[in-house]
Amino acid sequence: MLQLEQLYKIIDQEAENLIWPAEPAGLYTPLKYMMDMGGKRLRPRLCLLTYNLYKDDIGSHILTPAMALEVFHNFTLIHDDIMDRANIRRGMPTVYRKWNSNTAILSGDTMCLWAFKMLNKAPKEHLQEALNLFTRTTIEVCEGQQLDMDFETRDNVSLTEYINMIGLKTSVLLACAASMGAIIAGVNKATYQGFYDFAYKLGLAFQIQDDYLDSFGEESIFGKKVGGDIINNKKTWLLIKCLEEANKDKASAIKLKQLLSIDSSRSDEKIKAVKEFYSNFNIDTKALQTINSLYEEALTSLNNLNLSNIQKEQIESFAAALVSRKK
Amino acid sequence: MLQLEQLYKIIDQEAENLIWPAEPAGLYTPLKYMMDMGGKRLRPRLCLLTYNLYKDDIGSHILTPAMALEVFHNFTLIHDDIMDRANIRRGMPTVYRKWNSNTAILSGDTMCLWAFKMLNKAPKEHLQEALNLFTRTTIEVCEGQQLDMDFETRDNVSLTEYINMIGLKTSVLLACAASMGAIIAGVNKATYQGFYDFAYKLGLAFQIQDDYLDSFGEESIFGKKVGGDIINNKKTWLLIKCLEEANKDKASAIKLKQLLSIDSSRSDEKIKAVKEFYSNFNIDTKALQTINSLYEEALTSLNNLNLSNIQKEQIESFAAALVSRKK
Repeated sequence: MLQLEQLYKIIDQEAENLIWPAEPAGLYTPLKYMMDMGGKRLRPRLCLLTYNLYKDDIGSHILTPAMALEVFHNFTLIHDDIMDRANIRRGMPTVYRKWNSNTAILSGDTMCLWAFKMLNKAPKEHLQEALNLFTRTTIEVCEGQQLDMDFETRDNVSLTEYINMIGLKTSVLLACAASMGAIIAGVNKATYQGFYDFAYKLGLAFQIQDDYLDSFGEESIFGKKVGGDIINNKKTWLLIKCLEEANKDKASAIKLKQLLSIDSSRSDEKIKAVKEFYSNFNIDTKALQTINSLYEEALTSLNNLNLSNIQKEQIESFAAALVSRKK
Repeated sequence: MLQLEQLYKIIDQEAENLIWPAEPAGLYTPLKYMMDMGGKRLRPRLCLLTYNLYKDDIGSHILTPAMALEVFHNFTLIHDDIMDRANIRRGMPTVYRKWNSNTAILSGDTMCLWAFKMLNKAPKEHLQEALNLFTRTTIEVCEGQQLDMDFETRDNVSLTEYINMIGLKTSVLLACAASMGAIIAGVNKATYQGFYDFAYKLGLAFQIQDDYLDSFGEESIFGKKVGGDIINNKKTWLLIKCLEEANKDKASAIKLKQLLSIDSSRSDEKIKAVKEFYSNFNIDTKALQTINSLYEEALTSLNNLNLSNIQKEQIESFAAALVSRKK
């Protein structure tokens, strides 16, 4: 079993070595641009990690399917950025903005198809199982994006609905990654399902932490301006929880509604006031508690897998780094 | 071996029986709308046909992958309609127009992913080969769409480039369909490659015939207004061929340029004049000759396949119906 840092280096190297066709340039230049933006490559890392818990022969039969997850993830970002009219991604202009909507649609489509081409490098005996998981997952990601868009125009989103949505939009692809590595390593179904459950819960913790950091992170470490979600009244875990709490009492409900309607010209004031309101209702503390309890649930999913201490430490290190991250 | 009409009925039935999730409705309602528009279902028909040349056990192992081709094809239409700002498809508002661009992007993405889910019902022993072919093909379709868009802003598209483009945009998916049925029937590589070559050439003939009918078809049979390509100066086989011929002589080149610049308010006049110009250069006759010779080449590809007379008649009937069609 390799050290985590070694695994991450292998993935970074694999990402750098990806070769795309030169032509048609209108199709592949935007695709390369997106892939070269980098990112944490969490999904291929996790996929390689679970594989390597069982197998040491690291070759294209695992690396190419692992990178398929990254390529698919980047495809979803390209299309999401069109739908969200997003200008900036990882500090750079989005594909949609740098080129145009048509280019982003077609380059995105092509990336999605390349992901399947890459997945097809999985060993023949595990292909059907891997493809089953991958197609189910990728469809769920689209369903999650649809729910996210639906929520924008709804007033009464419940916390349960929110958790279901981020489960689809964020968690299932991490869960697929963890499970995929185990499938390609040849473990049985109960085992790869255990990894799935682990990463699903971890993904929920990760997303709620993202919501938390957007309001309560330290700007210097978070890497972008804190409070973006508050300015946009984005239906995050924090806001939905806060609405639930505030709605128990008429005066609080009115007060929160007032805060949410503060004009965008007074954004700093709005951020400060909403954060204070959150704190008065202990929303920040409750978010941290929820993150922690999801993290614990994630680790519990590993308990039935008969992992050795070394195997357990490896995957727990990955999980701990993900959830204690400050950016 | 079943009669063609029986095979077509099976495909139509299969299309009617496709079941999609109800939720999220914002995602699946547009998808169902598109699939319910109908169409000729050429690709699943051809896939089932080549399978049935060898095997009589028609079940979901061949029908679901066959329908995957249709679902993928419909996905490309949804996204193409956004890119082309097309309002009407098969006499109905396009998804992009009936809903909006975001809906068409995400419902399209979901359809594309369902196509892979459906392909995964191919028998395990042929899955990797089927997926190899399908991923290569679907990527090529996107490359073809990119070239088609590139051509719109170029003045000097050659006939060779045009044939290459329609090969990617139209032929490869038909070729994939023919080859897929044979792969799932378990034939050897030389054989399924023969079906590929056959349908590739047939697809070229089919597309050039489409170009021909758009200018020289009979409106009552063609089903839509003749001359749309002429009004839009669309770079079809006819126009590219005509530009090649006219450019041999300065006066003709100038004359053609004048005709192409006729204002859209005088569209009937433009259609009449351009068709006359085409006829003077025998472009219509040359198009028909090219269609016929591609059709003959397609049939030649079948010669090395050791097909029985009955098998040969079956696939030739499909081909003949495709290219002698008037609409």
